[in-house]
Amino acid sequence: MHDSTRLLSGAVVGVEAVATLAFALSGVLAAARKRLDAVGVCVVAGLTAFGGGTLRDLLLDRRPYYWVEHPGWIWVILGLCVVAMRWMRARHIVPTERAMQWPDALGLGLFTAGGTQMALGLGMPAAVAVLMGIISAVFGGVLRDIVCNEIPTAFRDHRPYALCSFIGAWALVGAQALRAPVWAGLTVAVVVATGLRLLALLTDYRLPRWLPPPADAE
Amino acid sequence: MHDSTRLLSGAVVGVEAVATLAFALSGVLAAARKRLDAVGVCVVAGLTAFGGGTLRDLLLDRRPYYWVEHPGWIWVILGLCVVAMRWMRARHIVPTERAMQWPDALGLGLFTAGGTQMALGLGMPAAVAVLMGIISAVFGGVLRDIVCNEIPTAFRDHRPYALCSFIGAWALVGAQALRAPVWAGLTVAVVVATGLRLLALLTDYRLPRWLPPPADAE
Amino acid sequence: MHDSTRLLSGAVVGVEAVATLAFALSGVLAAARKRLDAVGVCVVAGLTAFGGGTLRDLLLDRRPYYWVEHPGWIWVILGLCVVAMRWMRARHIVPTERAMQWPDALGLGLFTAGGTQMALGLGMPAAVAVLMGIISAVFGGVLRDIVCNEIPTAFRDHRPYALCSFIGAWALVGAQALRAPVWAGLTVAVVVATGLRLLALLTDYRLPRWLPPPADAE
Repeated sequence: MHDSTRLLSGAVVGVEAVATLAFALSGVLAAARKRLDAVGVCVVAGLTAFGGGTLRDLLLDRRPYYWVEHPGWIWVILGLCVVAMRWMRARHIVPTERAMQWPDALGLGLFTAGGTQMALGLGMPAAVAVLMGIISAVFGGVLRDIVCNEIPTAFRDHRPYALCSFIGAWALVGAQALRAPVWAGLTVAVVVATGLRLLALLTDYRLPRWLPPPADAE
Repeated sequence: MHDSTRLLSGAVVGVEAVATLAFALSGVLAAARKRLDAVGVCVVAGLTAFGGGTLRDLLLDRRPYYWVEHPGWIWVILGLCVVAMRWMRARHIVPTERAMQWPDALGLGLFTAGGTQMALGLGMPAAVAVLMGIISAVFGGVLRDIVCNEIPTAFRDHRPYALCSFIGAWALVGAQALRAPVWAGLTVAVVVATGLRLLALLTDYRLPRWLPPPADAE
Repeated sequence: MHDSTRLLSGAVVGVEAVATLAFALSGVLAAARKRLDAVGVCVVAGLTAFGGGTLRDLLLDRRPYYWVEHPGWIWVILGLCVVAMRWMRARHIVPTERAMQWPDALGLGLFTAGGTQMALGLGMPAAVAVLMGIISAVFGGVLRDIVCNEIPTAFRDHRPYALCSFIGAWALVGAQALRAPVWAGLTVAVVVATGLRLLALLTDYRLPRWLPPPADAE
């Protein structure tokens, strides 16, 4: 492995660590809103945190997984769940959906950058690398929603989410095409994806409805 | 790779191309009926189109995936979604379930043939090859229904679907056992699986109910 | 492969055989309660039986899968489904959830033991091996519930299930750390996991609720 690859790999791992915590927390909150039991909370937190990255690694045939290479993370997630549950129990509150949006937006940007860079590093075509960035960023949440028996929020709430990931991932591909250093590409992708997501949340922007709501709308 | 293997591989790839489009369209329509947003439509279309084949490849440890080898297809699916959404928006209609049945039946036969042949080519036992044909053909739709938060249609509507795939796959295994050329086996499987499906639709045939409907039936 | 590894491998395969049948039956019953059609019953049975082990093998990159190495099992499951459906049809009854609990508890213990041992044998860290034991034991049922469009029972009914698997898996890790022979570790894990599960069922023990039920509780 070249030194630059090693450095890149290190940057990607660091990026994933912060994103993992942000996503685990979003899983805890989703599970709490569905009143899952303590086991369900831990599983959904873990699935949200590691699901997207693991699916990406599975598709890219990349081993070892993040949580196999760093099994300490399994304990970190378990600890986070216990602390979060005790906190919610003591306060008798479940944080609202709004509280999930900030860590979630950060996780979105970080995983997009990490996943896209990783796929590019493995020589994938640009469109596939972008897809891998989106899968890393979005499919943890998709698995979370599927386990919680909901249509994934990312696909139905008309707020740009996967779209921010898509644009951020292309920003990274563009930066790389312009021969920007890896750290610059990663930074651009995080700033673009997270920034667009936060902007969309602050302005309450919605994707245009392309069909009238159905007669049997929920 | 032998020439015959290469030819076989080419035939399988061609078969998958047509089936992919048919399934993507069925995904668009399912997403439209659930009023997903534009991102959801594209994801569900892609999942329906590539999900079954990707799951098969994942289980068979076969790389690269169809959409990695041919990343242009990602754009084709995206384009199909945009065109379909604009068309539905202009006409103010969502095609009924009935309109999905014809491309779906074709996709069923084509993926059954492709998946079974691929597994046989990798030296899998006949029962596993049949299973791989069924997974290729049926699990795109299963993933589509799971993401749309429905019990998969294939498992509950008492119309033969996976069963047509099952019979078509065994027809291919039978043809191969009789030393028929590969193209003949593929053709037989497509004709049998798609034909049985269309026959079942035209005659409105239902699998026998094996239990009375529950008191709390939907 | 050393002789001891071969022996271990044999023991694990034997353990999986019994557990597979127990889980398939639990899948048949779940599908019957949802009134799936005959195809759905077979798929859900197969998914419950092989889903956990296959996901574990997929994550561990271990081939061939159980059902590829022993394709006869596909027929065994199909046969079990046909017999079970005929029996339910003749008696006009669907066994209650209670009837599923005993084979399910046995499957839980057996898969926990098999999955944990397998991951340890592949040199995984203890926490990952425990996770693999839990995935083997619990994710067949999780996939069953997802396909049946339910929040997985294991995550919401406040009865210890994955927790029993967790403790049983650590018992195996502990036994191995104490240099107990492999068969002893496997036995301990099965006895602990299945025993705890049965004990919880008999005493109707519930995990403490950590939040009040929501206003919009089901």
